[in-house]
Formats: sequence, structure tokens, C-alpha cells
Amino acid sequence: MALSVEKTSSGREYKVKDLSQADFGRLEIELAEVEMPGLMACRAEFGPSKPFAGARISGSLHMTIQTAVLIETLTALGAEVRWCSCNIFSTQDHAAAAIARDSAAVFAWKGETLEEYWWCTERCLDWGEGGGPDLIVDDGGDATLLIHEGVKAEEEYEKTGKVPDPESTDNAEFKIVLTIIRDGIKADPKKYRKMKDRLVGVSEETTTGVKRLYQMQETGTLLFPAINVNDSVTKSKFDNLYGCRHSLPDGLMRATDVMIAGKVAVVCGYGDVGKGCAAALKQAGARVIVTEIDPICALQALMEGLQVLTLEDVVSEADIFVTTTGNKDIIMVDHMRKMKNNAIVCNIGHFDNEIDMHGLETYPGVKRITIKPQTDRWVFPETKTGIIVLAEGRLMNLGCATGHPSFVMSCSFTNQVNMSTNTHVS
Amino acid sequence: MALSVEKTSSGREYKVKDLSQADFGRLEIELAEVEMPGLMACRAEFGPSKPFAGARISGSLHMTIQTAVLIETLTALGAEVRWCSCNIFSTQDHAAAAIARDSAAVFAWKGETLEEYWWCTERCLDWGEGGGPDLIVDDGGDATLLIHEGVKAEEEYEKTGKVPDPESTDNAEFKIVLTIIRDGIKADPKKYRKMKDRLVGVSEETTTGVKRLYQMQETGTLLFPAINVNDSVTKSKFDNLYGCRHSLPDGLMRATDVMIAGKVAVVCGYGDVGKGCAAALKQAGARVIVTEIDPICALQALMEGLQVLTLEDVVSEADIFVTTTGNKDIIMVDHMRKMKNNAIVCNIGHFDNEIDMHGLETYPGVKRITIKPQTDRWVFPETKTGIIVLAEGRLMNLGCATGHPSFVMSCSFTNQVNMSTNTHVS
Amino acid sequence: MALSVEKTSSGREYKVKDLSQADFGRLEIELAEVEMPGLMACRAEFGPSKPFAGARISGSLHMTIQTAVLIETLTALGAEVRWCSCNIFSTQDHAAAAIARDSAAVFAWKGETLEEYWWCTERCLDWGEGGGPDLIVDDGGDATLLIHEGVKAEEEYEKTGKVPDPESTDNAEFKIVLTIIRDGIKADPKKYRKMKDRLVGVSEETTTGVKRLYQMQETGTLLFPAINVNDSVTKSKFDNLYGCRHSLPDGLMRATDVMIAGKVAVVCGYGDVGKGCAAALKQAGARVIVTEIDPICALQALMEGLQVLTLEDVVSEADIFVTTTGNKDIIMVDHMRKMKNNAIVCNIGHFDNEIDMHGLETYPGVKRITIKPQTDRWVFPETKTGIIVLAEGRLMNLGCATGHPSFVMSCSFTNQVNMSTNTHVS
Amino acid sequence: MALSVEKTSSGREYKVKDLSQADFGRLEIELAEVEMPGLMACRAEFGPSKPFAGARISGSLHMTIQTAVLIETLTALGAEVRWCSCNIFSTQDHAAAAIARDSAAVFAWKGETLEEYWWCTERCLDWGEGGGPDLIVDDGGDATLLIHEGVKAEEEYEKTGKVPDPESTDNAEFKIVLTIIRDGIKADPKKYRKMKDRLVGVSEETTTGVKRLYQMQETGTLLFPAINVNDSVTKSKFDNLYGCRHSLPDGLMRATDVMIAGKVAVVCGYGDVGKGCAAALKQAGARVIVTEIDPICALQALMEGLQVLTLEDVVSEADIFVTTTGNKDIIMVDHMRKMKNNAIVCNIGHFDNEIDMHGLETYPGVKRITIKPQTDRWVFPETKTGIIVLAEGRLMNLGCATGHPSFVMSCSFTNQVNMSTNTHVS
Repeated sequence: MALSVEKTSSGREYKVKDLSQADFGRLEIELAEVEMPGLMACRAEFGPSKPFAGARISGSLHMTIQTAVLIETLTALGAEVRWCSCNIFSTQDHAAAAIARDSAAVFAWKGETLEEYWWCTERCLDWGEGGGPDLIVDDGGDATLLIHEGVKAEEEYEKTGKVPDPESTDNAEFKIVLTIIRDGIKADPKKYRKMKDRLVGVSEETTTGVKRLYQMQETGTLLFPAINVNDSVTKSKFDNLYGCRHSLPDGLMRATDVMIAGKVAVVCGYGDVGKGCAAALKQAGARVIVTEIDPICALQALMEGLQVLTLEDVVSEADIFVTTTGNKDIIMVDHMRKMKNNAIVCNIGHFDNEIDMHGLETYPGVKRITIKPQTDRWVFPETKTGIIVLAEGRLMNLGCATGHPSFVMSCSFTNQVNMSTNTHVS
Repeated sequence: MALSVEKTSSGREYKVKDLSQADFGRLEIELAEVEMPGLMACRAEFGPSKPFAGARISGSLHMTIQTAVLIETLTALGAEVRWCSCNIFSTQDHAAAAIARDSAAVFAWKGETLEEYWWCTERCLDWGEGGGPDLIVDDGGDATLLIHEGVKAEEEYEKTGKVPDPESTDNAEFKIVLTIIRDGIKADPKKYRKMKDRLVGVSEETTTGVKRLYQMQETGTLLFPAINVNDSVTKSKFDNLYGCRHSLPDGLMRATDVMIAGKVAVVCGYGDVGKGCAAALKQAGARVIVTEIDPICALQALMEGLQVLTLEDVVSEADIFVTTTGNKDIIMVDHMRKMKNNAIVCNIGHFDNEIDMHGLETYPGVKRITIKPQTDRWVFPETKTGIIVLAEGRLMNLGCATGHPSFVMSCSFTNQVNMSTNTHVS
Repeated sequence: MALSVEKTSSGREYKVKDLSQADFGRLEIELAEVEMPGLMACRAEFGPSKPFAGARISGSLHMTIQTAVLIETLTALGAEVRWCSCNIFSTQDHAAAAIARDSAAVFAWKGETLEEYWWCTERCLDWGEGGGPDLIVDDGGDATLLIHEGVKAEEEYEKTGKVPDPESTDNAEFKIVLTIIRDGIKADPKKYRKMKDRLVGVSEETTTGVKRLYQMQETGTLLFPAINVNDSVTKSKFDNLYGCRHSLPDGLMRATDVMIAGKVAVVCGYGDVGKGCAAALKQAGARVIVTEIDPICALQALMEGLQVLTLEDVVSEADIFVTTTGNKDIIMVDHMRKMKNNAIVCNIGHFDNEIDMHGLETYPGVKRITIKPQTDRWVFPETKTGIIVLAEGRLMNLGCATGHPSFVMSCSFTNQVNMSTNTHVS
Repeated sequence: MALSVEKTSSGREYKVKDLSQADFGRLEIELAEVEMPGLMACRAEFGPSKPFAGARISGSLHMTIQTAVLIETLTALGAEVRWCSCNIFSTQDHAAAAIARDSAAVFAWKGETLEEYWWCTERCLDWGEGGGPDLIVDDGGDATLLIHEGVKAEEEYEKTGKVPDPESTDNAEFKIVLTIIRDGIKADPKKYRKMKDRLVGVSEETTTGVKRLYQMQETGTLLFPAINVNDSVTKSKFDNLYGCRHSLPDGLMRATDVMIAGKVAVVCGYGDVGKGCAAALKQAGARVIVTEIDPICALQALMEGLQVLTLEDVVSEADIFVTTTGNKDIIMVDHMRKMKNNAIVCNIGHFDNEIDMHGLETYPGVKRITIKPQTDRWVFPETKTGIIVLAEGRLMNLGCATGHPSFVMSCSFTNQVNMSTNTHVS
């Protein structure tokens, strides 16, 4: 991998797919602004006083059109911004191009490799002289994780002289994280500690990231203040619920063109995301079955007329499977083997470990047929039947469609801006 | 049975439960008038010209508040009216009282025996001198049937001298019909033929009655013109669909107070009535399963996200069963034996032969516990579990609640009035 | 008012409408038990160990069939119970009769006057020797209020010798409360303080009662521990939401038989209760308009496709008005004057002060026509048009129908039992 | 315009965008086959007997993946097929490529000019020697129109020697039709009459085309038998209703990414298509307003809780406008001028004359900004506000998304195959 940073004529760094898409991105950003009254009101209210003047903000959050409006709100309030995506498939390249050209340092493109992904994250955090950002806007906690792992490794190195060993882990992605940190220590053994020292705090966007933070808080390993944006009612009860109600069918339609009416759809998990997904599928005419381990959420599903079963009960009869749990190992390769021909399997939870992609990829004799990017048919050797997996098990609404629509993201992101505003660097 | 006709101070005949409820009936009729713009517009448009002046109209149609507004529309247009209900449980006694006191000859009360029912029907058709009515407003075809059977018997009697023998049939209800006709022949051997001769025609309200008429038409036995009101789009696509969507849950709630949300409900038949019932149950939070023999209707159910199965598939798992087919022998005693404890069984189709009440009543050792009128628990001896049967298998929305609401009946009945107007006696 | 307590053959006190309805009540209680798995599981789990042995529980909570199953669960766990209703219209007389005959001291009937209501409350709390109850199950806080006001008055009396003066207040209902306390002080000047001393605490069922408790807590006037049952997710997110989704249309249908489809319905307030009401009306085919002062709830209404307006915007165009706010003075007589003829006005919030009944009753020249109990038409003199007010502005689902169905009340009441169990008298 | 036909290695003619997309098309065709059980059952049942052996079928119907499965069903039954699209934007180029390479002569690509469109239609009908097709599968009636106009012109030419004059009409599209016919007459003055003579008949897919046919039948100008496929219940009650319920939001999302929840959407027309569109928008959380001139359809809208208004009432307040009427001049430029900034205007009726595109394009000072293909923002000079017009006013579900999904098209197209089968050339 030989990635190199490029620079705009004004000297700002970036790495995007195609800067020539900036005009197209700008047109869609302008449309989105009309749909994002919360952010635009922030600009009107806080723009003149520039509360972020002098502040550096690093964001690790899907680099979409909506995020572009967030970024330009932050810059309108005075901030300097560097950005990367928090998912390898979620970048909209025209959005990245417009921001890179006009407003902030962007390191993101649709279809990154994992190596590229973490390179982008590291670029996003690296402000050169004077340490890292003042604030992090995180979604899923990868930026936060990199700093924490970096600090831990630097302290170990200082004590014992040992650098991190990528071979010490089986986890393919964590190997990459360790490699990046190892290389960083060689260049500057205080890099991540300088970041930590400068950092005022992080605001975390999503359920999964928040869970990570609470775990660190409990174990006393959290290195800086964190703000839970996710649990704002205008985030989790809007973005998770209404956002997914919109973007799940959008992703299904763009990826597969399949008729949802008349299908049997299984929604794994009936939290806010699951409720939005189930509502969307039911309204589109599917018969929805819910799997859920929380008894209260299960009872809510029943009250809405949904059948609650285990995945095993229905694995061979359903047409569409969606994971929304925020937990791992929900749909395993052994489930997938038993599914109907052309059953659709997808995930709309934050991380890609709800679906056992590793098990599928390494299944003996399995054959992958790429219908189009982010839509693969996997054929099992015994049955010759195939299943359709979307976005390689990652967030299907961002991988196969364009994520949540602007209006609901305005609700979410206005929380981000106000959280940041409240904690601005004085 | 010693039923005797009573007379108002003005000399009009009637037989109702309690004339003192007339004031209460009048108050509700006045409320209903506001909700029945179609009928009130008929009064405004046709009232002055009195197209029914001199016409006799006999109606056999649920004697409810809504029907009261229909009757008073007919009288406002100049008609003389006699009325009976077309179901032993469907009369609203305060409506009958108000009409009997103020507007027309009524023979109807809630909870008639079958003998009383047919006595009422015969009274409704009997205008004394000069034969019967000019027009019949029929719902289900019982008035029409009585005339047809009467004419047939009179012709047989004229030819052979034989009067009808009630013992010639096993059908308990038809025994009663034959008895009435036999007694009629003794009094006047041309009674029903005089009715037939005077009659301009019948307008039939409902699917089941229309089916009977088409059968008679095909076999060449239909004795007078008939108008199919049911298939008017403003009847079958409104009354059957939206009416049942309203009155099915109303009947369930009044009869059982059971929570519909979370229940498994089986709707037998997915025609207009079934579509209305399924929509109501689904919206109330039940999981709805449809049984249907018509492939197109079955496919429509699927497109709405409903599961389509056979009754046998679900008989032991469902909580609520509703028959809507217009056919007979849908839920048999053998099904009922297998149901869950306190499963609710009810019918919203026109006739009471969708549910095998005879099989249930004669099941060895079965025990009937009347919770309240029209709500019975039947306990099977083997299992000691019981099922709840509504309205003794008859139209549950009329037996347990008050039938369809005024507004949708205004749509239906305006057809009746206009049909009648179009064919008025000149 | 000369009310006198009656006694069963076993000597237990009661005052109900008609003890002969006990058999009917028992049949419906048995049906309800099948629908209340939570309570029945409590009996199975805690019945043998009798955690309430020796405990006195007083309940002020709608005396319905569902509450009967709660009461008999409390007695199955060993408690002695006295009960009154918390609303003058909410008692189901057959339920009260069955409980009075078989299980507990009941003082409740449908259609109490306010004097009778408070007499019942006082009877419910009075256990004779040894002070009052160990636990109170309260719904709306009237039992709690009576004790607090009683203690306050007794302390004042002890200090100054002054008894409460009913004429000191304009509030008609509070006059009655003061009268009862005054009469109590004369009989026993330590009555309410003895109650307070014995009392372990209260568990409060509903939002409004909880609000009162928090206010007392803030001002330091709360005299005993209180448990907030309302905010249990299995109460407020089930009972308030799904319960009202069921019982609002039930009440509308029983009271008015009006077709909901095609109507314009205004739901004042979009909290849990309002969400349930709006869902029910929308699903039944009404066009629903929401009034809401909380911006987040208002935005949720919008996301569900509901129009959000002020009451003034729509007062003259809507057909149905429902108050769900938990606040007072929502629909004033000045609104009612502007409504369409036969607009329906009702309240499903806990207290009857959401609708300005006082303003309506005292409106010059207004005429009240009682269609049937709990359904009144009020005609304004200027316009001669009338509005239909349900349950005299009190909880229409309990006044006009039978309240929430058993299954959802099982969720609520299981909280009550477990709260009580957790705090049982050792 | 210098279009030239290309040939496959086997000599079959075609003209498509990019034959290299054939593999991609084939993959999606294989997915669609699983979703089109009706067509696959036709292949299984009729394939062996080859009822179309020797028959030439010309189709003018959106050249999508679903149509590809139809075409290959026709060829599996023995037919030779030539195909064009019936809309300039509806072709899926990978579908066209796969069919052109593997199965039939295709003349279609996404984004044809009108000249190209009619060139394709003419190519589709031209089978060289021996006249035209035996059967036409028409959608909207353009192939049928071309033959009728051709025959008319040839007869005129034979009589008077006059060829059609494109300048005789103001209609831009009809100019092109006349040009093609004129040029055809020069080459072969009996071309269209030979077509007519050979033709067994046409089966017409859609409402609009059927209307044209009935008009020709009434005026006695219909030259050959026509079968009305549209009115099959498995077409109009499925494709129009459930198809649009799926593809309308799909088109909106792909074109604009706009959040539908919370928007005010106007659906012009409440026939089957309008019902599907309104259902989709309502379920997605929009507030839906219907405009409708048919009183029964309007009343149905009301029964579903939709507001019925005129377009003028809401033109300045709504966010989304969809025309579904099948009539012309529904949304005029004068309406568009009054709309909110970024209001979305689109059509899902068959023809592009529901929206006044001509008025918009020629509005003085109007500015067109193409966001992306089929998504244009038109800015009015006075207000500087813009509206978003989809697919240039043509069928937005086919222009901006991929049309109806496979399953429902299987229902429609199975009618086509069976109609054709029933009338096959012996």
C-alpha cells in the first residue's frame, strides 16, 4: 500500500476518489441544506460568534452528503476540520470531493480496503505539529480506539522497549491497527499521548460506540471525556428509528430490486433500529418475524402484530434477513447454508460482525458471484443454491444506498454541533 | 307462540320490545341523520316531489338506527312502509320503538326466536287488502324467499290439494317457513300470488341475497324483477369493506373486552368483508392469518403481508376466528374442539351457517355457559377447555354491537333509495 | 347523603350497586384470568409463600374486572384488601359485586356522586383499630391526598384548635375533601396520623399521580415512601400506549356509534397516551391532527405523517377531539362554542380538568340532552348546534367502555404486585 | 441522426448502449427468474409444445430486466422476437444487452431522443420481407399508433399522391412520427398495410393504451383485434397498485434521497396507481393529500384518512407532487411557479403530458440545473426558488429507478403470455 496525501491549491490535504465530482457533490449539498434546518439554524445562531475559532475537530463518520453539511457547519462556526469515514463502503465520493475541495481535509472513498480505512483514520487524527485534534466526532469509536491503543502501546514501549506485534492477534483488522501504531511509535513515541493531552473530548454518535465507551469507563481506561450523543432522544429515537425505516428499503431496492410485498422478512433485534426496519418492511407488505432476546422488546413486537421466533425456527423459510442487534454472531454460516435460494442477508447494525462473513468466505467450496458492487451471490457447493449478501455484511443502507436522509440526520448532527459548542475550546 | 300485533294511537300496526324506548331511539336517530348525508340529500332532492306517493314498501333489513333513517327517508318520499329485521339479533329496540311510534309498521326486536322471526317477516309482507307491497327492500333474501315458497306451495295446492308439510324437511328453520305458508294457504290460497302480482320488484342489499337471486334467475324461477344493490361500488366496496373494518372490532370489544393486540387472528375469506376484517385486526395489533380458496384474493392477502394458510394449519394456535366467506360449513365442531382455551369464534357473513352451531350444540357432553347475551362459552367435556362463540354464530357486529356505523350505511342506503326511486310506481 | 356500609355473611364490609351481579362478575373474572398471565404467574410463584400475610392493602383504582384479578392476586399472596375506585364512572358493577362477595371490602359503583366518591375513599382507608393500611395502591393519588390533607388538618387542629373549613375553597371537590376530614377530626383527631404511622408506602399507578408525588417530594411534604409504577416500561409504554390504542375507539364506538373513518380527529397531546390514541384513530381511517407543546413529541407526530397544529387552527373543522395531556384547561368552553354540530369531545387523561366542564355547564342558555348515560349532547343557544361530550369529561374509556383490556393491565398490575412484594411487611 | 443497426455474430439485429453489459444483465435476469414464478411456469407448461413456433412478436414495452424474462419466455415458447422500449428513459441497458446478445432483436437504450425512440419503434416493427409481426405486445399503444398512422398515410398517398407533412402539426413528437412514415412511404408505399394484413392482433398492457384502443374501436378506426391485458385483475389490481406502492418511493429515494417522513405529499388521482402511491407515501410517514375528480375514488381516499383537496389549495405548501391520473395537463407551469423551494414534481402515469414540461421549459428566464440524469432543478427567475422535476416528467419509477419489481411484473406478464398463447398463429 502506497497511499499518498494530495493537496488542494490552497495547501489543504486530502485523499478522495475523484476531485472532479466536487461540482456534483456541491449541488447535492445545496439540496441537503434545505432539508437540514437544524444545522442551518446552528449556522445562523452560532456562526457570527464563531465558538470554534481556533479549534481543531477530527471526525470519523460516514463521509456522506449529510455529513458534508455537518462539516461545513463546524467550519462555519470557526473550526478547522479533518475527516475520515467510519465504514469502508459508506463514503459518497461526490460529497468527499466537494468537502476536500472547498472546506476540510478529507480522507475517504467508497470501497476502501481495511488498510486504507485505518490509514485514513490515522490521517484524520494527525494534525502535525502540536498534537492532535481538540475534539473528536466519532461514530462507532474507531478514532477513539486508535488513540487508546496508541497510548497503551507507547506506555508499554516506554517501559519495556517493546513495540506492538501485529502477529500477536488473529483478528485481521486489529493486525492493521497494531501495524499503524507500531509504525507511529517508530516515528514519534509520544504521538498518541500528545493527542490525548490536547484532546478536550469526544462526542460519540452511535449505540455501539457508546457501549465501548461505557466499558472503558467501567474499567477505568477511558482517557478523556466523552459525550453520548446517541442517547439524545433526537438521535436514537429519530435517526435509528425513522432513519432506518427510510434507508433499509432504500438499500434493499437499490441492491436487489426485489419486491418486498409478499415476502417473509426476519428482523434480528427489536431495538430502535429494529423497530424502524420492521415498520418499513411491514408497511411495504412483507410478513415480518422478529428475533429478540429482550423480553420487553419482544412483547412490543407482539403488540405490533409481529411474530417473535428464533432464527432457527424460520431460517429455511424466510426471504429477507436483516440484523439490527449491535451484537455479534447473529447470522452464522450454518444458518446461511439452510436458507432458501436467493434469500437476502444484510446488516444495518453499526459493525460488520453480526453476519458471519468470515465463516461464509472460508466455507469449503463456496462460490462468490458479484452481481454488482455490494451485491454478491454466494453459492453453496452442496445445494447449488445461493444467498444474496449485501455490502459484504456491513451497513447495507450506507453500502447499497446513501444512508439516512438529510432531515433525520439534521436532528442527529445538530446534537453533535451543540455538544461540541457546549464544550468548545476557550 | 301467541304473538299479537299491537296498534299505535293512529292505528298503525307494530310489535316491538318496548315502545317507551322511542324517545331514546329518536335522539339517536337525530344523531344518525347528521352522519347520513346521502339519505338526507335524498330527502332534500326528492322529498318535495314524493315519488313514492301511494307506494307500499316492505323491508326485511336489520332494524337499526341507520335503517330508521332509511325508513324515514322512504316515508319522506311518500311511501307507506312496513318493516321487519333480517336477523334475530340485529334489531336495536330503541330504533324499532321510535319508528313504530312515529313512522312505519315495525315487527322486530332483539332476540327473536326463529318462529317469531318468520312471523315478523310475514307480518311485514302482509298489507291486508289488495295484496302485498309494491317494492321489497330485502337483505339476504328472506322476504323474497317467503313469497317464492308461498307461490310454489299455492300452485301445488291448486293442482293437487296438498298443503306444505313441515315434517318434509330436516331443516329446523325451513320447517317454520312451511308452517307459516301452510297456515296462510288455509286462510287465503292466493295470498302469495296476489303479492307477486302487485310487486314491482325487489332491491337486494347483500352478497348472499344476490347469490340466491342469480341462482333463481338461472333456473328460471325468479318471479319478479330484482335489483342488485350489493354490487354498487358505493355498497360492496364501502359497506362491506369499511363497515366491517369498523364493526368487527366493535363487536369483539363489546362482547369480550379482549385485547386484540398480540393475538393471532384467523380471517376465513378475503373478499370485501374479509379485507375489512383483516385490516381492522392487523391495525389493532393482531397477527392475521387468512384462509382463502380464491387464488387472486389469496395473492392479495400475501401482498398485504398476511399469511395464507388452511384452517387446519392454525386451528389450535389462533386466538380469534372470524368467518366472512358467504359460504357454509367453514368452522366445524371438529375444528372448535381443537382450539385453544377461550378462543373466540364468530361470524360476520350474512347467514349463520358458516359456523357449525348445530354440531356444537349437539356435541355430546358440551356445556354452554352464557357470559352475557350473545356471548357464550362452550366447554368441551374431554378437555374442559372452552371456546367463546359470539351471537350464536350469527352476524356478530349486529348481534354484539350495533352494526355498521351511520356514515357508511348512508352510502349503502342511498343506493336503495335511488334504486327504488328509479323504479317507482307510476 | 346517608350512605351505610353493608356486610357479607362473613362480616366483610362493602358498598356496591348490586351484589346479585356477582355471578356475572365471576364469569368475566375467570375470562380475564386467562388473559392476565403476569398476575397468574405471580400467584403461582408467590402464592405459596404468602409474602403479604398479615398485610393490609388499600387500593384506590378503577374497580374493573381487571382490577378484580389484581385484588385476588393480592389476597392470594396473603393480603387483606379494601378497595375503592379512583373515578366516579369507572367501576364495573359486576366486578365490584364479585369481589365484595368473595374476596375483599369494596366501596365502589358506576356513577358515584363526588360526595359518594370521597366517602368510598375514606371507607377504603379506614381499617378500624390499629390505624390504616400497610400499603396503598393508588391511581391518581386521591388516597394519598386524603391522608396528606388529613394529617395537615390534624396538625393544624392540634396547634390551633381550628378544624378545616369547607367554605375556605371555591373548588367544589375540595370542599368535600375538607368536609370529610373535618368530620374525621371530630371523631378521632389522630386518625390520619395513625394511618401515616402505619403506612409502609404507596405505589402510584399513573402519570398524573406521579407528578403530584414528585411535587410533594420537592416541597418536602411527602409523608411516606412512594413507588413510581407508572414509569416502568411495562406500564407507561404498554398500558398508556397499547391500552389507549384499544380503549379509545372502544369508548367512541360504544358511546356514539360514530364512523371513525373519514373523520378529522384532533388529539391534544402526543405523549404515550396521545401516541396510542392517534395510532388508533389513524388506523381506523380518521385524519388525525395533533396539538402538542413539546417540540420533540411534535416532531415525532410529524414523522408519523400527522399534522401538528394548534387547537384554534382546527376547532371549527374537526369532528372528534380527545384530550390526553395530563394538564388542565385544554379544551375550553370558548373552543366548544366554535365546533361543528355534533363534534365529539372527550378526555382520556386521568383527571377531568382537561375539558372545561365547569365553563360548559355554566354557559348561559346551554342545554344538556342526555342521549344515554355518559353521552350528552350540549346545545349552545346562539347556534342551536350541539357537541357530544363523553363521560362528563372524565376518562372516556372507563366511563363509556370498560377501560383497557386485560392483557395490557396484566403488564401494569404485575408491576404493582411486584413492587408491593418487594416491600412487603416483615 | 445517423443510427445504424448492428448485428450479433449470429446475424441478429440490435442497437443497444453497450453490449459488454450483457454478462451483468444475465446475472440480474437469473435473479429475476426466481422472482417471476408465473413466467417460469409458462415456460414449464408451454415450452415443450412451442405454441409460438413460427410466430413473429414485436414488443414495445419498457426494456427492463423483467421484460427480458418475458421476452425469453416468448422465445422459449417458440417465438421470434423484436423489441423496443415504450419510454425514452425506461431501458435498463444491461438488460437490453443481454437480450440482444442472447435472445432477440433489441432496439433500446436509456436516454433516447424522441427521434431515436421512434426509429427504435419502427425497427422493432420491421421484420423485412413478408410484412411485420404476427403479434404486438404494446404498452401505451405507440407501436399500434405507428401502424395506424402509417396505414392512413399510405391510403392517402395512394389516393392523392400526398405524403405526410411533418410541418402540419405543432406537436413535436408527432412531427417525428410523420417523418418516419413519410420516409417509409417513399421506400415502400405498402409497408404498413402489409404489416396490418399479417397482424393477428395486439395485446395492450396499460390503462392509457387501452383508452386509445377503445376510442379507436368507438370511431371504427381500429384496424386489428386488440386484447386488453390491463384490466385483468392480476394486472391492474396488482401491477398498478402494488407495483407503484413499491416503485414510487424507490424512484423518489434514488432521485433525491429526500426523507419522505414528515413531508406533505400530493397525489393527483386516486385510481389503482394513485392508491398504490398514496399508500406508499403514507406508510413512509408523509401526510398525503389527494386530488381527485371522481367522487367515489375521492370518498375512498377519505375513508383511508387522506385529505382530498384541489391542487390549487395546496400547491404552495406541499413538498412532493405525484401525478397518476392518466390524463393530461394536471400540473401546469403556473402551479410550479407557486411551489415551495425544492418541491419535488414527478409523474408515474404512462405518458409525459400530465406535467406541463413544455410550459416549464419555455418559461421566460427559467434555469435548468441538472443535478444528475433524470433529476433536474428548475429555478424561476422571479423567486430564485427551484423545483425538482424527475425524469423530465416521464414515468419516474422507470426513469429514476428500475420500474416495478419482478414479482408483480410476473403477474402482469403472465397475462401477456397467456393472451398471446390463446391467440397463437396456427
